[in-house]
Amino acid sequence: MGGEGLSYAEAGVDIDAYERVLERVKPLIAATHGEEVALGVGPFAGLYALPGGGHLAASADGVGTKIKVAIAAGRHRGIGVDIVNHCVNDIATAGARPIFFLDYFATGKLDPDVFAQLVEGMTEACRDARCALLGGETAEMPGVYALGDYDLAGFIVGLVEPGPRREPVQAGDVLVGLASNGLHTNGYSLARKVFEGVAMQGELAEQLLAPHLSYLDEMQRVSWKGAAHITGGGIPGNLPRCLPEGLAARLHRRSWKVPPVFEKIRRRGPVSDDEMWRTFNMGLGMILVVDPKDVPEGAMVVGEIVKQSGPERVEIL
Amino acid sequence: MGGEGLSYAEAGVDIDAYERVLERVKPLIAATHGEEVALGVGPFAGLYALPGGGHLAASADGVGTKIKVAIAAGRHRGIGVDIVNHCVNDIATAGARPIFFLDYFATGKLDPDVFAQLVEGMTEACRDARCALLGGETAEMPGVYALGDYDLAGFIVGLVEPGPRREPVQAGDVLVGLASNGLHTNGYSLARKVFEGVAMQGELAEQLLAPHLSYLDEMQRVSWKGAAHITGGGIPGNLPRCLPEGLAARLHRRSWKVPPVFEKIRRRGPVSDDEMWRTFNMGLGMILVVDPKDVPEGAMVVGEIVKQSGPERVEIL
Repeated sequence: MGGEGLSYAEAGVDIDAYERVLERVKPLIAATHGEEVALGVGPFAGLYALPGGGHLAASADGVGTKIKVAIAAGRHRGIGVDIVNHCVNDIATAGARPIFFLDYFATGKLDPDVFAQLVEGMTEACRDARCALLGGETAEMPGVYALGDYDLAGFIVGLVEPGPRREPVQAGDVLVGLASNGLHTNGYSLARKVFEGVAMQGELAEQLLAPHLSYLDEMQRVSWKGAAHITGGGIPGNLPRCLPEGLAARLHRRSWKVPPVFEKIRRRGPVSDDEMWRTFNMGLGMILVVDPKDVPEGAMVVGEIVKQSGPERVEIL
Repeated sequence: MGGEGLSYAEAGVDIDAYERVLERVKPLIAATHGEEVALGVGPFAGLYALPGGGHLAASADGVGTKIKVAIAAGRHRGIGVDIVNHCVNDIATAGARPIFFLDYFATGKLDPDVFAQLVEGMTEACRDARCALLGGETAEMPGVYALGDYDLAGFIVGLVEPGPRREPVQAGDVLVGLASNGLHTNGYSLARKVFEGVAMQGELAEQLLAPHLSYLDEMQRVSWKGAAHITGGGIPGNLPRCLPEGLAARLHRRSWKVPPVFEKIRRRGPVSDDEMWRTFNMGLGMILVVDPKDVPEGAMVVGEIVKQSGPERVEIL
């Protein structure tokens, strides 16, 4: 990826190795799928047909090493918000309204104050999403997690009401961007490497710990054909997941504002431009594909759908 | 707890601290619950009313430090079975048939062979439970997990068909025990301390890594009033969860066979009798409360329901 500066692989995350092993186990997973399982609408969420009509959408997520930043800063409430909103956005791409959420919290030794902050954040975000925190598991695993360390995973289930299918994405549709407020929950292995040795406080801590935004309400107000939650892999890694074969996305990078934290990371790394785009959301937390006639007033149009002409599914001009 | 030998708290797990903080956050969690949430049938699973009738049951679980034993032995497939069956049993106590499962796998650096073994185990158990492996999250978190370490959490959703309520548990009902094949997924912090320095191979590895059994099929064949999945906290910690106020359970310890691994742990610790019962399932992975007329032929009757006369909800004679 340019060969200069810090790369995500050097920071310890090997996306290619994961994709290779996933190919190996896919047939085993497919063998567990009965006719109720529908995964055709994009892999941000799994879909399961309900006997009475409609579907359940479900997703599992983690917060990644943003947790290490929270530990360094001693601020955990936002991590609770992060995990819920990450999950909410994933199933929102399937048109689902969240109904319940469960968490898995694992630590070396339970710190009641950290746990309470996380639950405060999770319940706040659950209330905002009108979603029940239905349960969870708390595990003390001395010997797996170092003192003060923890991990937090979330599982969400939403309801997709029965109804007509969304119109298919086609060339000429426009891309509406929904602004992020920072890294959300992706790219922290790289970001932490970039800021190694820097005290996690003040403006930097604020910027790096800004909680993952929920796009549920905005997405319920817009009539959209496809949606991509911009998480690990950035725009090039996620936007194609909602594009039919033969179509590509063209984005105009001057059509939205990249939050200053990304420029800070790029310069300090230094991190190549390519690596930045492949790792971070770069200011767009969600991208919707919308029929030109349905673009709401004031929406941030960041590009359009075109016929694919080269190997790339995403072109950033 | 007897004051002698190794205790679970000394092994690094403080159940009381967790229960105190849980009291603190319960009101926040309750505030996320709309009228669809029904938790009355026992806390092994959360229940959510479906618009079309019936309920969804959901549960989140981990495998705990059994993972450390698997890592020491280099055998991971059973851990995949463990996490699914733990989840399946939890929602089976609510009368749910599993419909889908998702996993969260986090590690320092992805080992494709370990991951493939885990997926093999999970998909095997999902097929047995007629349950779709609908999705999951895989996270590489260098700096949180040491090289070779990992954690695995599971999340399951099941369907409780609409129908008449189960008859209430009453004095005179009998307890039917479903045999475990070892520790299942609980008590490994203590067990690992007991076997510290012992090579994890041969018979010991076999015994400690025996996969968590699923009781789904047996539970679907018996008409039962209440069910307790015997996990962390052992029989005294779990059986009361399915008992109405004012009733207690009386068990006859000679009425079932305790697998030899527990005696091995008790002697080697040494671990007090009290601590053994408070930590391990002691040979019963699930206990069903059954009307005497509904006890199936060949069932293992291990006790009965009595009126509570002292402070204890569970008496083991």
